[in-house]
Amino acid sequence: MDDVERRALAWVDASGLCPDEASRAVAVASNSAEFYARFAPAADPERLWVAACWVYWGFVFDDARCDEGPFAADPAAFAALAGSVQRALEVPGPLRTGDRYAAALHDLGEHMRACAGPVQCRRFHHAHRAWLGGVQWQIGNRAAGRMPDLDEYLAMRLHAAGGEPTYALLEIANGIDVPAAEMDSPAVLALTEMAMLVASLDNDRHSYARETGLGQTGQNIVTVLMAQDGLAPGRALREAIALRDAILDRFLALRAEILPRAGAALRRYLEDLGHGIRGNIEWGLRVPRYAGPVGAGPSPVRARVPAQLPWARRPLRGGRDPRRLPSIAWWWRDPAF
Amino acid sequence: MDDVERRALAWVDASGLCPDEASRAVAVASNSAEFYARFAPAADPERLWVAACWVYWGFVFDDARCDEGPFAADPAAFAALAGSVQRALEVPGPLRTGDRYAAALHDLGEHMRACAGPVQCRRFHHAHRAWLGGVQWQIGNRAAGRMPDLDEYLAMRLHAAGGEPTYALLEIANGIDVPAAEMDSPAVLALTEMAMLVASLDNDRHSYARETGLGQTGQNIVTVLMAQDGLAPGRALREAIALRDAILDRFLALRAEILPRAGAALRRYLEDLGHGIRGNIEWGLRVPRYAGPVGAGPSPVRARVPAQLPWARRPLRGGRDPRRLPSIAWWWRDPAF
Repeated sequence: MDDVERRALAWVDASGLCPDEASRAVAVASNSAEFYARFAPAADPERLWVAACWVYWGFVFDDARCDEGPFAADPAAFAALAGSVQRALEVPGPLRTGDRYAAALHDLGEHMRACAGPVQCRRFHHAHRAWLGGVQWQIGNRAAGRMPDLDEYLAMRLHAAGGEPTYALLEIANGIDVPAAEMDSPAVLALTEMAMLVASLDNDRHSYARETGLGQTGQNIVTVLMAQDGLAPGRALREAIALRDAILDRFLALRAEILPRAGAALRRYLEDLGHGIRGNIEWGLRVPRYAGPVGAGPSPVRARVPAQLPWARRPLRGGRDPRRLPSIAWWWRDPAF
Repeated sequence: MDDVERRALAWVDASGLCPDEASRAVAVASNSAEFYARFAPAADPERLWVAACWVYWGFVFDDARCDEGPFAADPAAFAALAGSVQRALEVPGPLRTGDRYAAALHDLGEHMRACAGPVQCRRFHHAHRAWLGGVQWQIGNRAAGRMPDLDEYLAMRLHAAGGEPTYALLEIANGIDVPAAEMDSPAVLALTEMAMLVASLDNDRHSYARETGLGQTGQNIVTVLMAQDGLAPGRALREAIALRDAILDRFLALRAEILPRAGAALRRYLEDLGHGIRGNIEWGLRVPRYAGPVGAGPSPVRARVPAQLPWARRPLRGGRDPRRLPSIAWWWRDPAF
């Protein structure tokens, strides 16, 4: 991991992504190499550093162009930006561009093409586009002052949180090639989406704690439940955790069904979906980006993180049946493999 | 084709997509069954009617939610709509939704799952999302009163015109399964994109003629060239045709290189990319949607369409080298197969 971090930060420095020390410090504070090493603990270091580079890129882009800054509530400007950076990712070979985010992302696209096959690169491109579409939706809601209902929020958050490109890097980092018939099966798609949503809701829980401390509130699973059902914050938080736990439960059950029939590459992928869920939590509780003085400000979370993290003994049960939510109900309907 | 049209219109009627006679007449006037029969002349009728249904859906959605109506210049509202309909397409099994576009599209997704494999369906989903992303970009520019430069316009138009889902239906309509290693190769991606862009620029030429007659001007290859290079309309039109011809030239040359090495399914796909280019022109010159009294108004095009269409004997040469346009230059750099 240390070696991967060194190589990835050398790329950050060479890429022009961070034009000054302050922005570089924000990138460093994301611990992106640690983050992705947790997702792909068996990865080939020669490929892992490329995946880590994209995570650095993603955090820097997110801060500068998605969650904050002039694009955060300007859906027209973001649409043009998203279209341009996506094209920069996809175009192979030399590319002239004056935008440092597009230039760095294009360079990463080249690195990916050098260490992974066209099918893996294309899957990453699709995932990347879906992420930018989710961010677009979130920015649109923010601009319109619109609080989505729970089902819409889940459909949006699924893509907006960046889990899709992050998980699409698993094939690249591990140097594996999951056959299309497996990867595109409804069961594997459902498992991927469940892992994405669990991690997204965990991030919501982190950021709700932070934002409440800072007096901010945005679109968040807790605020969505408060708005939709008129719940008090504590009750909404419990319902959010129960929903998240129900999805994780289903993920574990469906994965256990699929694993015995999965090929070697798919097994690696499915195991790393789980590593990502755990890795995201453990990284998120201690990373300077969220816990330290760099970034959005002091956090109420850090002081509460013990050396040995406590575990819940069982899922929290809530008052809501996730099988009644139209966007995700199908995860419980035995998706085909 | 007549049979396919009957079945597809029966679906339109049953789907609730068109709530009144006027909107049904607009759908019928799109000749969507003819349109798609031209794309896939060897298709299995049992599958072709499903592809035709999506084309009807696409035109109705386009009219109501993309090019006209309250969403046409409201990027925030469109982002939420696009996210919801895309999710409706992807979710398998029963879906509760109050939106008639989402409900009809979901039903089509079910039909596709019934007649095509998960890989083909997933490719269609990716293509559909990319299309909605392109429309989002176009709507954003419209809302911001922003005229893109040529390279941005091409990157946007590539996705905004709907060629991507239309071509992704080729596998479904033909009942073929192009192996991922072929379909995701840079060469096949380049060929797909070239076919999409040629058809999009042909549509621009049709609509420029129409819109000029109506006194409207939007983002269009001709207006983009006029704005960027200060060209008079006639000169800009010639440059637009020359650019389009250069792309078609390159498409034909690269396809001729790839075809001898292509498997049977890919051969069918590559041949139908070409059928789509020609079919789109021949359909577009005569379809009531653009030429008749239904829709946007009288057209200056119709009167000029002879029974036997004239052909240019050679490509028009322009003053611009398309290999200097960053978004598409790679098409000329021998993309790998």
